[in-house]
This record gives sequence, structure tokens and C-alpha cells, in this order.
Amino acid sequence: MTLYKLLKFNDKGLIPTVVQDARDGTVLMVAYMNRESVRRTLRLKKCVFWSRSRQSFWLKGESSGNVQKVKEFRIDCDGDCLLVKVEQIGGAACHTGQRSCFYRKLMPGGVLKVTSKPLFHPKKVYGH
Amino acid sequence: MTLYKLLKFNDKGLIPTVVQDARDGTVLMVAYMNRESVRRTLRLKKCVFWSRSRQSFWLKGESSGNVQKVKEFRIDCDGDCLLVKVEQIGGAACHTGQRSCFYRKLMPGGVLKVTSKPLFHPKKVYGH
Repeated sequence: MTLYKLLKFNDKGLIPTVVQDARDGTVLMVAYMNRESVRRTLRLKKCVFWSRSRQSFWLKGESSGNVQKVKEFRIDCDGDCLLVKVEQIGGAACHTGQRSCFYRKLMPGGVLKVTSKPLFHPKKVYGH
Repeated sequence: MTLYKLLKFNDKGLIPTVVQDARDGTVLMVAYMNRESVRRTLRLKKCVFWSRSRQSFWLKGESSGNVQKVKEFRIDCDGDCLLVKVEQIGGAACHTGQRSCFYRKLMPGGVLKVTSKPLFHPKKVYGH
């Protein structure tokens, strides 16, 4: 069975994609792909998402240089979710400068705690 | 900042949730929670999702016994995705008997390859 026949996109034509560090298994982020961004990702061997806020293709790391080189591409049992294992250039996947977007952990009492430090300053990278 | 103020549910009232093995970092599955299933998950310390196909709460492992004990609960930068690190009882998270729902890997040429063997036979566990 080939990939494109199995992929199930949601009612907005998107499929959630978990991005995981290929070396140490850290879950870096979750973003969305449409059919064409899946094609671009596989062709470029770099993650290309669909930005829901900008409604445009989003080559991850295009402005920061922190691209995600695709090492492994997986699909789940239902075909409605992707798992991409990557080499994260620059180390940080999050726009806040954090390595992972999941840098906040729930503590007893319902409070969130930041459990890591940013690897870069967003202002220096994005200029805003 | 507390969790419930930060959570952003989609237009169906759901938030995608990545479930990861707390010990070795394997991404086991992605499912969806609504506000009440987040509450139930945190109260029970076991994953409770919202089943989109059955339109009901879904205590993961209720029929198979393969519950997911919550070890860590994280939220992403945008508040629109969760990462739950778990102890997967029985070892397998997928209804196919596979440890992870992401048991198929894309190979050169666009073909998917099953890269692991099931840990249980679905017929024996679910009776169908």
C-alpha cells in the first residue's frame, strides 16, 4: 500500500504531524500538513507544513535557519496522523527559542512550570 | 498561569494529544481530548480521550486492560496541543496489537513497511 492512498486528511484538508528528534526521541512540536506539503516534505527531505494562521506553506526554519531534516516518516494505524523523525538544525524547534514546544509541564495544583531554557533569543532570530 | 486558561480547543472542542512512553520516548499514539476528558485524565491519572468515531469518552484500555498511567502532562507553546508521557500497561497502545500506532515507515519508492510485530492478537483482546 502506498502512502498517498492511506492518508486521511481532516475536513480542512490537514493531517496533524508529530515531529520527534531522531536522536533522543524528544517530541519537538506538532504542526499540520496538507497533501501538497507532504509531497514537498518528501521531495525536499525537510519539513514543510501548512500554516493555519498564515494560510500558506511553511518551510520550517526558512527564516531562522533551523530546518528539520527528515530522517524517518511514519503514518499511524488510521492514516490520520503522521510522525516525522528529524534532525533539528540549530537544536531548537520552538519559535520561543525553546528546543521543544512542550517546554511547560503541569505541576501538582494545576500550575505550569517551564522546565527548560531557550536556546536562542527570538528577537535576534526573527527580528521582532 | 494555570492549565485550563491556556488550553485552546479546536472548533469541535478538541485538542490533539500526543501520548509518549515515559521510559523510552516512543510515540505511542495521537488521540483527542475535550475539556472534560482533560479533567478526567488528571483526576484518574489515566488517559481519557474523546472518541470522535463513537462520540463518547474513551478511557484508553478500558476493554483491553492496557491503560495508560499518566506520568507527565505537558502543553505546547500555543496551548493547542498536549503531550502526555505514560506508563503503557501491557506494552501495546494500538488496537492492532502493535506497541505504537506508528508501526509503518515510509520506504524509498513510497511504500510503507511494517517495522514491528504485534504484542497481542486483537481478536483475543477485543473478541472481534
